[in-house]
Amino acid sequence: MLEYKQGLKIAVIGASGGIGQAFVAHLEAASAVDKIYAISRSGTDFSNPKTSNHTMDILKEDDIAAIAEAIKSDAGIDGVIVATGMLHNDGAAIAPEKSMRDINAASFEKIFAVNATAPIVVAKYFLPLLPREGKSFFAALSARVGSISDNEMGGWYAYRASKAALNMLIKNASIEFGRRYKEAVIVGLHPGTVKTDLSAPFQGNVPEHKLFTPEYAAQGMLQTLNGLTAQDTGKCFDYAGQEVPA
Amino acid sequence: MLEYKQGLKIAVIGASGGIGQAFVAHLEAASAVDKIYAISRSGTDFSNPKTSNHTMDILKEDDIAAIAEAIKSDAGIDGVIVATGMLHNDGAAIAPEKSMRDINAASFEKIFAVNATAPIVVAKYFLPLLPREGKSFFAALSARVGSISDNEMGGWYAYRASKAALNMLIKNASIEFGRRYKEAVIVGLHPGTVKTDLSAPFQGNVPEHKLFTPEYAAQGMLQTLNGLTAQDTGKCFDYAGQEVPA
Repeated sequence: MLEYKQGLKIAVIGASGGIGQAFVAHLEAASAVDKIYAISRSGTDFSNPKTSNHTMDILKEDDIAAIAEAIKSDAGIDGVIVATGMLHNDGAAIAPEKSMRDINAASFEKIFAVNATAPIVVAKYFLPLLPREGKSFFAALSARVGSISDNEMGGWYAYRASKAALNMLIKNASIEFGRRYKEAVIVGLHPGTVKTDLSAPFQGNVPEHKLFTPEYAAQGMLQTLNGLTAQDTGKCFDYAGQEVPA
Repeated sequence: MLEYKQGLKIAVIGASGGIGQAFVAHLEAASAVDKIYAISRSGTDFSNPKTSNHTMDILKEDDIAAIAEAIKSDAGIDGVIVATGMLHNDGAAIAPEKSMRDINAASFEKIFAVNATAPIVVAKYFLPLLPREGKSFFAALSARVGSISDNEMGGWYAYRASKAALNMLIKNASIEFGRRYKEAVIVGLHPGTVKTDLSAPFQGNVPEHKLFTPEYAAQGMLQTLNGLTAQDTGKCFDYAGQEVPA
């Protein structure tokens, strides 16, 4: 649970997704958390008095800038969780590539936009809202399959590449931001394989004990975030607190 | 020099650029090389009888498929060098980001398309042209700044992320392709900082002895390719044959 200090104010982006909803629920139950900004494209209706609901399209920079400004004028934030991500999209006929023959430039464009570019545009507006003193964090959902050195299976070209790109962007942000915000923790998080729409077509390959509920994954990632320090910034960690290599 | 076997047939994509031209010139001078396909968007007029000139836009899959088909009907290939890349583009107002404030989603889209997606779409059509038996190679220009673990400076967000993505795509291609083409070498190459249009705005920061001519960089990379074996596939190597970490 997130409890490294009292009175925490946290923004969850992608709050309507399976993992995003679980993050909000855990944060609502956390006594150290005073305020949650639940942000998503489709909108949410969390009714806990700690939580405010906001709509934002992560592909629209104006949207991001507007919400960041609203948060700045309100209570501010101590941490940001970006829980968005795209692996497949039935409507737009995007599916993870089983082989190189399935590679399609239009799918790459969409996957890079959602998984790599959008989180760093969010960082551009949300990182400056974090407090200059004391621990703060910015975490984006990455994935173990985004690890180049850990890749032994291949496949999923666009998704893997987009998460490797995201890991680089997180590293870059941690370097730039760390110069002034000495205790900021800027990391990627690997949730494990979670029972959500994202992983639905692929759950058959996952042993039951390795297929997590969103609640379990979100709890693990919050526990991980709770324990991280500025020494860990720029890296990627999994739901159990283990570092995922580049 | 490239001389691991006689009668080599090599495709150079991006043959009109500074480094691409230098690759073609070295290959023309190499006695082990019989045939060079010089391929670029703007076209080239290499007049050495070994060399044929072809136009192809790496952002157009139909173009790529057509040239690949023409090569297949002609002499085939033993190796492919993708020497394209974009760091800045004055016309489209793309410049490497000094800080997160400079991040722009439209620039990201263009840089990812040119530096990450295009090389793997080229691979989709050109890798199947390589011989099933014996050493063959597919090499794309990557960059040391695309190394996540080696990143200590930050900045250049889109370019760094696109090269990290490319490194993942190369790793992925090496895994898939290596299952059937046991001696294929699929790698990224770091040319060093080279006196070309790409690096022109940034050469002031580079000590003179670290600023290479295209001829020097291309020679070093060909020497590296000459020495690599299937054990090295999936990784990134610099002009001096040293591995660049993920």
